[in-house]
Amino acid sequence: MTPEEFRAAGHDLIDWIADYRQRLPDLPVGARVAPGDVARALPADPPSATEPFAALLADLDRIVVPGLTLLQHPRYFGWFPANAGLASVLGDLASSGLGALGITWQSAPALTEVEEVVCAWLARLTGLPGGWRGTIHDTASTACLVALLAARERASGYSCDRGGLQAEPAPLVVYASEHAHSCVAKAAVLAGFGRQNLRLIGVDPVSFAMRPEALRAAMAADVAAGRRPAAVVVSVGTTGTTAMDPLADVLPLAAEHGAWVHVDAAMAGSALLLPECRHLVAGLGGVPGAEDGADSLSWNPHKWMGTVLDCSLLYLRDPRLLLRVMSTDPSYLRSAADGEVTQFKDWGIPLGRRFRALKLWFQLRLDGVEAIQERLRRDLANASWLAGQVRAEPGWRVLAPVALQTVCLRHEPPDLVAEDGTVLDGEALDRHTLAWAGAVNASGQAFLTPSVLAGRWMVRISIGAENTQRSDVAAAWELIRRTAADCAASRSSPTRTV
Amino acid sequence: MTPEEFRAAGHDLIDWIADYRQRLPDLPVGARVAPGDVARALPADPPSATEPFAALLADLDRIVVPGLTLLQHPRYFGWFPANAGLASVLGDLASSGLGALGITWQSAPALTEVEEVVCAWLARLTGLPGGWRGTIHDTASTACLVALLAARERASGYSCDRGGLQAEPAPLVVYASEHAHSCVAKAAVLAGFGRQNLRLIGVDPVSFAMRPEALRAAMAADVAAGRRPAAVVVSVGTTGTTAMDPLADVLPLAAEHGAWVHVDAAMAGSALLLPECRHLVAGLGGVPGAEDGADSLSWNPHKWMGTVLDCSLLYLRDPRLLLRVMSTDPSYLRSAADGEVTQFKDWGIPLGRRFRALKLWFQLRLDGVEAIQERLRRDLANASWLAGQVRAEPGWRVLAPVALQTVCLRHEPPDLVAEDGTVLDGEALDRHTLAWAGAVNASGQAFLTPSVLAGRWMVRISIGAENTQRSDVAAAWELIRRTAADCAASRSSPTRTV
Repeated sequence: MTPEEFRAAGHDLIDWIADYRQRLPDLPVGARVAPGDVARALPADPPSATEPFAALLADLDRIVVPGLTLLQHPRYFGWFPANAGLASVLGDLASSGLGALGITWQSAPALTEVEEVVCAWLARLTGLPGGWRGTIHDTASTACLVALLAARERASGYSCDRGGLQAEPAPLVVYASEHAHSCVAKAAVLAGFGRQNLRLIGVDPVSFAMRPEALRAAMAADVAAGRRPAAVVVSVGTTGTTAMDPLADVLPLAAEHGAWVHVDAAMAGSALLLPECRHLVAGLGGVPGAEDGADSLSWNPHKWMGTVLDCSLLYLRDPRLLLRVMSTDPSYLRSAADGEVTQFKDWGIPLGRRFRALKLWFQLRLDGVEAIQERLRRDLANASWLAGQVRAEPGWRVLAPVALQTVCLRHEPPDLVAEDGTVLDGEALDRHTLAWAGAVNASGQAFLTPSVLAGRWMVRISIGAENTQRSDVAAAWELIRRTAADCAASRSSPTRTV
Repeated sequence: MTPEEFRAAGHDLIDWIADYRQRLPDLPVGARVAPGDVARALPADPPSATEPFAALLADLDRIVVPGLTLLQHPRYFGWFPANAGLASVLGDLASSGLGALGITWQSAPALTEVEEVVCAWLARLTGLPGGWRGTIHDTASTACLVALLAARERASGYSCDRGGLQAEPAPLVVYASEHAHSCVAKAAVLAGFGRQNLRLIGVDPVSFAMRPEALRAAMAADVAAGRRPAAVVVSVGTTGTTAMDPLADVLPLAAEHGAWVHVDAAMAGSALLLPECRHLVAGLGGVPGAEDGADSLSWNPHKWMGTVLDCSLLYLRDPRLLLRVMSTDPSYLRSAADGEVTQFKDWGIPLGRRFRALKLWFQLRLDGVEAIQERLRRDLANASWLAGQVRAEPGWRVLAPVALQTVCLRHEPPDLVAEDGTVLDGEALDRHTLAWAGAVNASGQAFLTPSVLAGRWMVRISIGAENTQRSDVAAAWELIRRTAADCAASRSSPTRTV
C-alpha cells in the first residue's frame, strides 16, 4: 500500500471509527454471535486477489462489530473498564505509522526515552516512592510473571546462573490471597515454582482482603517444613470484589523472610491518580519492620484510566535485580551508547517493543490529568450511589465493600434467602442469579459479569466506561431490578445462559 | 477526546503519516541523537494543561523522528527488516479504534475467530503440516519462552501440578545452536532450567548451522550424567548469518530422547510464503525416526513480511499440551460458550489481548499474497546480486552462505588479511570494520549492523525494507566500498563509533 492509498483509506477509517464511537450507545452491548459464526463468515481459503478498502470497512460492520462485546458502550459494566480513549488511539496510530522498533536504545532512542519520561510522570502522578522506575508491559499477567521471576532469582541467590530451580536445595514458596487474580497462580506455575508451592491465603469474610495472620501462619509452617518464602503478591483491588489486601501489614511479614512483595494494582492503580485514594497503598515505600517497602507494583492504564490496550506499567524499587535476570548482550545489539542508556529489552520478556509510550503521552497531553481525575471521581460517586440504591431495595444485597467503582450485588428473593441472610436454597439462588444476569446481557441494554463469591454466584457491576453517566447507571439498575423480578416471578430459566 | 475531535485530529495524523512515509528517503536512516537528548527535550513535570493536537504533531517532527532509526527507509539494512506496511497499520488502527479486549471468547468472539482463521490461512500459505494450530504473540522471544515452558512440563510429566521444577529428580536440559538468538538462552533462564542446563551446540565452520553430531554427543553425555534432554531449539535463519540448522537431522536425535523441538524461524518464516524456500523446514511434519515431526514453530510477520509490530506467530502440533500448562478458569471469565470455543488466554502468557489479527487480515486482503511474494523474491535477488558484487571485489569477502536476504561481508585490506585469508592483525581488522561501519551509519545514507562472527567483527547487510530497490542496494554498496577505502587509507578511526 502506497502512502497515497494509505491517505485515502486512512481518512475513511478515521471517519468510520468516529462514527462507530458515536453510534455505540445505540448498539447492543454484548456480542451477538454464537460460537463459529464469525469464522463461518470468513472464507476458508486465504484471499488470492486484493480487495478495495470499502470491502474491509463493510466487513467491520457486518462481521466484526456484532462479534464484539462493546467495552466502550456507556452501559458496559462487565469485567473491568477498558476504555480505549481516543487520544490514546491516536498515540497508538502514531506508533504504528512511525513503525519504530525498540530492540535497543540505538534502534529507537525516542521510544526508550519517551517511555522513561512518561513512566516517571505517572510515578509522580500516582505518588509512588521516589526512585522507583517503571516500564510498559502488555498486561498485568506478564508484569506479575516478570516480578515473580525476579523474586525467584533473588530468593535463590541467582540460581539462573547455575542449575536453575532444578538445583535448589529447598522449595521456594509464593503467597497470594485466595481472591488474587488467576494470573498470579499462572505466573507461579510458569516460573516453575509448582502449584504445591503456591499458598492461596484465606480472606476476611467481610472485606475479602487477605488475612495477615493467616499469611504469617502459612509462612511459619513453610519455614518449619524446610521451605523458603520467596514472594508475596498483594492484591490492591481484587478482580472479584476490588478487595484491598492490607499492604502495610503484609510488608513486615514478608520482610521477616526476605520475600519479594509484588503489588498487583492492575485495576486500582488508576485510583492512585486521586490523592484521596493513595491510602490504598499506604506503606508502599516502607513501614516499621520493612523499611524498604514493597519491591514492585503493576497497574494497567489500559483499564480504568482508559489508555488503549495494551499498556501495563511495572514499577520496581530496584531494577538492577531484574536486569541481572533478563539481560542479554549479543554482538549485533551492541552500540557505542551502551552503558549510558536504558535498555528496556533487559526489563522484560520480549526483545522487540512497540512505541507504546506514545499512547500515554498523547492521552496525558490531549485529555489532561484533571479530566481523567474528574471522570474517575464521577465513577466512584456513581458506584457509591448505586450501592445506596441496592442497599435500600428490599430483597437486594451489596455483598462486598465498594472500595472503588465496582458493586457486587445479588437479588435474594425471600423464598431463597431468609431475612437474616441464611441461604435457603443455594442451588436455586445460583440459578436465579445466572438467569437474570443472562437475561440482562441478552437484552443488549447492559452488560455485567456474574462471579462466584464465597461459593455462590453474584453479579459485579463494574462502572467506568468513559461515557457512563449517572443516567446510564440508573437505567441499568432499573433494568436489573425489573429483569430479576421477572425471573423470580417466572423461574423460567433453569439453565445458565450468560 | 470526543469522536468529533478524534475525527479532526485523526485526519491530520493520517496525513502526517502519509507525508512522513513519502519523505522517508530524504531523511537520515540512523537516529541522530545522543543519550539523553530526547528525555531532555521533554518537560520533567507531567503536563498540567491540555494541548492542541498540532503541538503533538510538531513534537513528532521535532523530537521523535530524529530520535528514531528509520526501519522503513529504503536504505535501512540493519538488524532485520521491520516494514510496518501501511495496510497493516490500518488494521492496527481498526483494532485500537474498536477497542476490543480479548480475555475470553465471550469478550470478543470476532477477535478470537478472525485470529483462528487468519492463522489457518498463514499455515496454508507457508505450507505447515495439516492440523497445526497457531496464535499471535508479541515477539519470537515470548513464543520461544512459551514453547520451552510447554517442553518443560511435557518432559517433567507436568511438574507444574506438583512441586514444579524444584521437585524434579534430575535436571532437564535445553539445546540450541551457539548461533541461536539471545532469546533462547533468556527463555531457558526464565523457564528456570538454569544456564548450566543450557547447551549451546557448535556450528559448522562454513554454514554456521548446528552440527547434528555435536548435538548427538551432547545429549548422550547429558543422559550418561543423569540429566534429561527436554528441548531442542532449531534455528531456521539465525540472526547473525541466517544460518539454517538441519531440522531433518535434528528431529530423530530429539525423538530418541522425547525432547520437544521448537523451530525458531522468526526471520525465515516469511520465506516459507515462497514454495521454493520450503525446503528450509523440510521434515517439519515428520521424518523417519521422528514421525511426529517438530512440536512448535514460530515466525514473525512483523519482520520481512512487513506486518506492523507486534505480530509473532506460534504454531503448535498439539496445543493441548500448552493448554494444560497455561489454562486458568476464574468464575468471572466463564460463559455458556466454554468448551465449544477457543480460549486464546490459555495459549500464552497475557490474559488480555489486542485484536492483532486485524493487521494480518488487512494486509493479506489489501496488499495480497502475490505482491508480498514478489517483494520477497526481489529481496532474495538483490541479496544474491550484492553477494556477487562483493565476491568480485578485491579485498572484500562474503563470510557466510546467503541463504535468504542477508549478506555478511568484510573489507579485508591486504595489510590486515593475507591473500589466503589468514588474519594478520585481528584487532586492527576489528577496528577497521567498526570504523567503516560506523562511518556509513553516521553518514545517514545507509544503516547496517556490525556483528561478531567466529570471534571477529563483520557487517550484516540485511535487505528487505519494502521500498528497497536494486538501486538502493547498489548505492549502499558504493557507499560502503568508498567509506571502507577511505578508512583503510586514513586508519583514522581507532575507536568504535557505531
